[in-house]
Amino acid sequence: MPFPTVEITLPAWMDDALTDRNHPYPTVADRMALVIELARRNVESETGGPFGAGIFELQSGRLVAPGVNMVIPGNCSVAHAEITAIMVAQKIMGTFDLGEEGLPPMELVSSTEPCAMCLGAVVWSGVRRLVCGGRDEDARGIGFDEGPKPSNWTVALEKRGIAVLRDVARRDAVAVLKHYVDRGGWVYNARQSAAP
Amino acid sequence: MPFPTVEITLPAWMDDALTDRNHPYPTVADRMALVIELARRNVESETGGPFGAGIFELQSGRLVAPGVNMVIPGNCSVAHAEITAIMVAQKIMGTFDLGEEGLPPMELVSSTEPCAMCLGAVVWSGVRRLVCGGRDEDARGIGFDEGPKPSNWTVALEKRGIAVLRDVARRDAVAVLKHYVDRGGWVYNARQSAAP
Repeated sequence: MPFPTVEITLPAWMDDALTDRNHPYPTVADRMALVIELARRNVESETGGPFGAGIFELQSGRLVAPGVNMVIPGNCSVAHAEITAIMVAQKIMGTFDLGEEGLPPMELVSSTEPCAMCLGAVVWSGVRRLVCGGRDEDARGIGFDEGPKPSNWTVALEKRGIAVLRDVARRDAVAVLKHYVDRGGWVYNARQSAAP
Repeated sequence: MPFPTVEITLPAWMDDALTDRNHPYPTVADRMALVIELARRNVESETGGPFGAGIFELQSGRLVAPGVNMVIPGNCSVAHAEITAIMVAQKIMGTFDLGEEGLPPMELVSSTEPCAMCLGAVVWSGVRRLVCGGRDEDARGIGFDEGPKPSNWTVALEKRGIAVLRDVARRDAVAVLKHYVDRGGWVYNARQSAAP
């Protein structure tokens, strides 16, 4: 029997939620509002964890690809919101490097600061800016481990030509995290967390 | 038009290379020899970068899933060897958590120490041990950036219940890295590296 193909498919509600693919997201606040809404809808639809993300063209604000956490329904610990947005965007653009010459500069907007895995993925993706809503400590606050991240992670990104913008609509992002827990959402993999 | 499904399919040669799916890998040296051979074959076949990995049952040494770097041909910056092995293993086992109760303990064997992204992915995967061949500095030595990893990353894994074994057949792993460069293999994304 051959090894299986792994398929990453965004939740069915995503195409309904984004019917107008030319909808403009001119400001950072607009972009963050969208990814927080995707996180909220992901929780409501029980299609994954309380995290949303999107790859946008930095100047125009055009949405290239959305992403949501699909770890539990997808049977895939890699399927964080940032990772799915990056993978779908690269599939659409036909390149492993969103910073490729000839493409408009792109950014990743994430409802919560990236975990250790997604932090690395940001570097390899080719995006030129990372915009974050909730902070690491907000994710940890509801029991998610953010993993082995260097404390100076924003500097590490900036050194690699990736600007970082934090605390955009942080309160709204945190509200979705809390909503997930209030609904009894499963904080998976928490058993492996280090003692604080 | 709906957002596309992202598909991760191991190279066609993989099923030929592993026809005997019950082949035993009793020792750590056996397991490392296999993943280094997969890395070498990946280079020879021009199906990706010089990195191989595998998820094994820790006690029996049964291979659950192999992985190789497929970044360039797959148009996917996330498709590192460790990530593909984890995703395929979780697909086969039908769970996002390879450390789930009822499953035998598993380990990830990687031809080179994980980059920042894969380090985080190891934590979320549920494996109980990480076995490495080449070191970070060996990957950097041929121009690959390992990304923003904390300097005490082995401690960070051990704190989360994941043992780390390093320098297994390091020289053989490094030989594949050198072979890739000698053949003119593309050291992608190097432009974003920080100055040393």
